[in-house]
Amino acid sequence: MVSDKMYELGSKKSTIRTIFEYGRKRAAEVGEDHICDFSLGNPNVPTPDFIKDAAIDILTNMPPQAVHSYTVAPGDAGAREALAKSINKRFGMSFSRKNIFITSGAAAAITICFKALAEPNDEFLVNAPFFPEYTAFVESVGAKLTVVPANPADWQIDFNAFEKSVNPHTKGVIVNSPNNPSGAVYSEDTIRHMASILAEKEKEYGHPIFIISDEPYRELVYDGREVPYIPKYYEHTLVCYSYSKCFSLPGERIGYIAVPDTVPKFDVVFGAIAGAARVLTHVNAPSLWQRVVARCADKPADIAPYEKNGKLLYDGLKEAGFECVRPQGAFYLFPKCMEDDDYAFCERAKKYDLLLVPGTDFGCSGYFRVSYCIATETIERSLPLFKKLAAEYK
Amino acid sequence: MVSDKMYELGSKKSTIRTIFEYGRKRAAEVGEDHICDFSLGNPNVPTPDFIKDAAIDILTNMPPQAVHSYTVAPGDAGAREALAKSINKRFGMSFSRKNIFITSGAAAAITICFKALAEPNDEFLVNAPFFPEYTAFVESVGAKLTVVPANPADWQIDFNAFEKSVNPHTKGVIVNSPNNPSGAVYSEDTIRHMASILAEKEKEYGHPIFIISDEPYRELVYDGREVPYIPKYYEHTLVCYSYSKCFSLPGERIGYIAVPDTVPKFDVVFGAIAGAARVLTHVNAPSLWQRVVARCADKPADIAPYEKNGKLLYDGLKEAGFECVRPQGAFYLFPKCMEDDDYAFCERAKKYDLLLVPGTDFGCSGYFRVSYCIATETIERSLPLFKKLAAEYK
Repeated sequence: MVSDKMYELGSKKSTIRTIFEYGRKRAAEVGEDHICDFSLGNPNVPTPDFIKDAAIDILTNMPPQAVHSYTVAPGDAGAREALAKSINKRFGMSFSRKNIFITSGAAAAITICFKALAEPNDEFLVNAPFFPEYTAFVESVGAKLTVVPANPADWQIDFNAFEKSVNPHTKGVIVNSPNNPSGAVYSEDTIRHMASILAEKEKEYGHPIFIISDEPYRELVYDGREVPYIPKYYEHTLVCYSYSKCFSLPGERIGYIAVPDTVPKFDVVFGAIAGAARVLTHVNAPSLWQRVVARCADKPADIAPYEKNGKLLYDGLKEAGFECVRPQGAFYLFPKCMEDDDYAFCERAKKYDLLLVPGTDFGCSGYFRVSYCIATETIERSLPLFKKLAAEYK
Repeated sequence: MVSDKMYELGSKKSTIRTIFEYGRKRAAEVGEDHICDFSLGNPNVPTPDFIKDAAIDILTNMPPQAVHSYTVAPGDAGAREALAKSINKRFGMSFSRKNIFITSGAAAAITICFKALAEPNDEFLVNAPFFPEYTAFVESVGAKLTVVPANPADWQIDFNAFEKSVNPHTKGVIVNSPNNPSGAVYSEDTIRHMASILAEKEKEYGHPIFIISDEPYRELVYDGREVPYIPKYYEHTLVCYSYSKCFSLPGERIGYIAVPDTVPKFDVVFGAIAGAARVLTHVNAPSLWQRVVARCADKPADIAPYEKNGKLLYDGLKEAGFECVRPQGAFYLFPKCMEDDDYAFCERAKKYDLLLVPGTDFGCSGYFRVSYCIATETIERSLPLFKKLAAEYK
């Protein structure tokens, strides 16, 4: 009577959700301040005041029809122009509004790209570890997600495995740097190497291979690190962005796809994106939020709390004896479990009310994800507990 | 290199859009006040102040994280409860939050339903005339849209044709009352008759047939008319609503699906809806707007300007000699062309700068759609021009 696949997708809880709900129940039993919940990636830095001020100013001073009417599908012309200018200033591009398709967040942006590009038998490649929703999104457009084994040394790319995975069916590669769950930021070398492999394969196969760059964590990088802007390194790049993380606006669903002029057959690609947005029923991105982010596009993200949390947690985990790559970006760490079975390890951590997510869910068994977009006090409270957990393995 | 289908859907302009853009170009040549543009269904009544006030109050007085964080996929619990209560009060139901799935507008709501329900070889039925996007939405989930010929006498249902069209592949029937483009409101008799046919067919085939009731125009009815609430008449009903028209908020994308308790296997249907929303990447409906419409759900829509426009236009068209059904709801009239070829008729109307949409686009050739959600002065200005157009056919 219904689609079995949709029922399965809608009724099975994700591991992350299950752990989070366990935490809520446990908090009700033993008290909130006994729980160290590292499960969710929900930004805890409050939405900055400049967002509130912009929204109230627009609601107060613009005629309501100018704010709330349908926009054309790619978004309000002025908003798109403002976003393009901000990209140009920050990354040295020369975009105009025609390069920007405003979307309801990054999940919509990447899935619109998959839907726009996917032809029968197409595959999209992703390097492990990766955000688990990619599987549902790619499969929902009738394509296959191919997972390239991880490079746990530094969570850059295992280029041997990567090169072997690219094949004539590869339509695109998903890049997510800064990465959920590893916190890694791809270096310029990594991008160049990946681009050169893909450019060769494009020539060999005689068809384009796109990079779909999913960049919701672009602004969340530490120690003054730079995140290379991939269109500068590779022609067939579609950049997917979201304001969920930098401005703590995940509920409002606002982001964009940038289609650089260097993309060959630009009009065909942009047209297919519009068609995909249409049938995924993203009629237009929420029109108030289009204007708000356009006004605030040049404003900085407040990354200080995440940087502080990441360092505190990393140092604490190292001291407790965990193997872990130093945090570079996003608000996640991805340490090695102290036993092979990451589910068993995370289950054992529950004894100390440490709520961790098994790495298997991110395509990488034997590791666990820790989200540090939480109160600093919770992290401080967790460190002796991580030590106790580690002591069990000595 | 891209999906041909997506390119086609995204690059071919709809007839409505083409006419609208012609109007913009023509206005630049001859001046705005020479153009009578009846092409778009964009509400012209300004968004009411209570919406602005609610939004500003929420932004000012709620903690930002309470407003802008992710909500669970079906929407904020409090917002869903408020919407359920408002439905209960107005339509005598006994919904609670568990019956409500908040969506990014009605296009998302209906397509989520199609995607949730569609199994291989499924068909959805619609009575002509109908909103042309239904075709793209239904086909995008892999189902077929079957069109039942219209009943032009009063734009209710041609039950002979309807009964013949229902078949073992029929998974659902799309109802859109008040109707775009005809302006008709289905009477209680019509609903009862349709429900009895479907209930019989359900028994005959041994599987459910859903009514997907697309109701963005529910509040826009005239002469004190009532729009029957379909769940009272038929078990397998999913109600899809939008605040685009009643509160003039089409750009903000906010609406809901109501799943009544009477729907057998409620949890399976609700689960499939959640799965469909997930893969259509409607992560959650914009969170500020969830709260705003929840606060304003009981407020009235300002329909007076539409009622006035509809009457003025109807009387004028009748006086000019057009055949037309009296406006009952929405903000459209669907008169008969004065020649069989509706494209030729609408082309001829352009001579007078009357911008009309051919009925063929709505599955009903020989008619044309007039949107009267425009300035009353434009309608006044158009009436002598309609007379001149009609005179050509005498």
